[in-house]
Amino acid sequence: MPIISVKMTHEDGGATKEQKEMLSKKLTQSFQEVFNRKTNNAVVIIEEVSTDNYAIGGETVSNIRKIKA
Amino acid sequence: MPIISVKMTHEDGGATKEQKEMLSKKLTQSFQEVFNRKTNNAVVIIEEVSTDNYAIGGETVSNIRKIKA
Amino acid sequence: MPIISVKMTHEDGGATKEQKEMLSKKLTQSFQEVFNRKTNNAVVIIEEVSTDNYAIGGETVSNIRKIKA
Amino acid sequence: MPIISVKMTHEDGGATKEQKEMLSKKLTQSFQEVFNRKTNNAVVIIEEVSTDNYAIGGETVSNIRKIKA
Amino acid sequence: MPIISVKMTHEDGGATKEQKEMLSKKLTQSFQEVFNRKTNNAVVIIEEVSTDNYAIGGETVSNIRKIKA
Amino acid sequence: MPIISVKMTHEDGGATKEQKEMLSKKLTQSFQEVFNRKTNNAVVIIEEVSTDNYAIGGETVSNIRKIKA
Repeated sequence: MPIISVKMTHEDGGATKEQKEMLSKKLTQSFQEVFNRKTNNAVVIIEEVSTDNYAIGGETVSNIRKIKA
Repeated sequence: MPIISVKMTHEDGGATKEQKEMLSKKLTQSFQEVFNRKTNNAVVIIEEVSTDNYAIGGETVSNIRKIKA
Repeated sequence: MPIISVKMTHEDGGATKEQKEMLSKKLTQSFQEVFNRKTNNAVVIIEEVSTDNYAIGGETVSNIRKIKA
Repeated sequence: MPIISVKMTHEDGGATKEQKEMLSKKLTQSFQEVFNRKTNNAVVIIEEVSTDNYAIGGETVSNIRKIKA
Repeated sequence: MPIISVKMTHEDGGATKEQKEMLSKKLTQSFQEVFNRKTNNAVVIIEEVSTDNYAIGGETVSNIRKIKA
Repeated sequence: MPIISVKMTHEDGGATKEQKEMLSKKLTQSFQEVFNRKTNNAVVIIEEVSTDNYAIGGETVSNIRKIKA
């Protein structure tokens, strides 16, 4: 019964309901395949973070996107 | 001085201000009763997560609610 | 079905098994009392952190304890 | 570039190096398949938590295992 | 390549884009100065939490602000 | 009063007590400089994670180090 939490940047209008369903399923299956433990209680929590609030190498992703554009 | 963080699904319009006050008090008291440590600096952080972003057993809570309904 | 996680300093030999059992029960009950939701799947995770790795006001708890002693 | 963190109970001597390698790969691939984003910087962090420090439904996993045994 | 996450109360309209840029830079530099490790992949995630959802000493920050006012 | 948490790989015998003291101070000061808020209650928590349990791009840091060596 793991807790799997995902933090990702919120981009292009955000992850769709379908993407979040697929991701939840796949992450849970991945765990199940590796550990062969019961996952009926496995929890997946997905958090989307504004690109203003997520920085890589000291630069917000908002700025990284601008530089690249 | 613990940090207690709560992640819960956002349901039925979300937790009310009063529920969050009560929860903060009770969690802090629980810690105090067990460890008898100072809790004047104890932190409680409550995060409500969309039922689309919270999955149990690989199924989002949004879908679990639908199946049950 | 909340996830409640507790981060606390590891002191005096650490929390005992009994304290961790009591804390888990009380935190879960607190949530149940406030929200009246099912808690049979509620998760409590307790993490004890070395006082060298936990700082308050920019000072590690190890040093705070020394100054007070 | 997501951060995927896994908290799981430490059981039967703990996850092996190989299991952790496989899990890291599979979780990263799952994300990649769903979002089609670059994952060369995706981070996976696996934390194993003592069964004394992990409770479900207010009962530590250590105790749950005993009751079942 | 550390992950640095900041949880802070959302106050006075929230942190500005500029403050979040500055904070990301400074936190990353701090890490770099102390450990002298590569930080081009260092991640900073900033989360602002409603003062209703953040409690200190069992009292929500919303209430603490009121009492002081 | 922020909570700043740092997750980093445990390498070369781990961060020293002095490094953790410095990091705690610098991170707290960084926050103070940007937001000009009281930081006497700011919390810094540093977690060092085994290179077997920390993966980048789907590869554990243990393996990344080997490939480079």
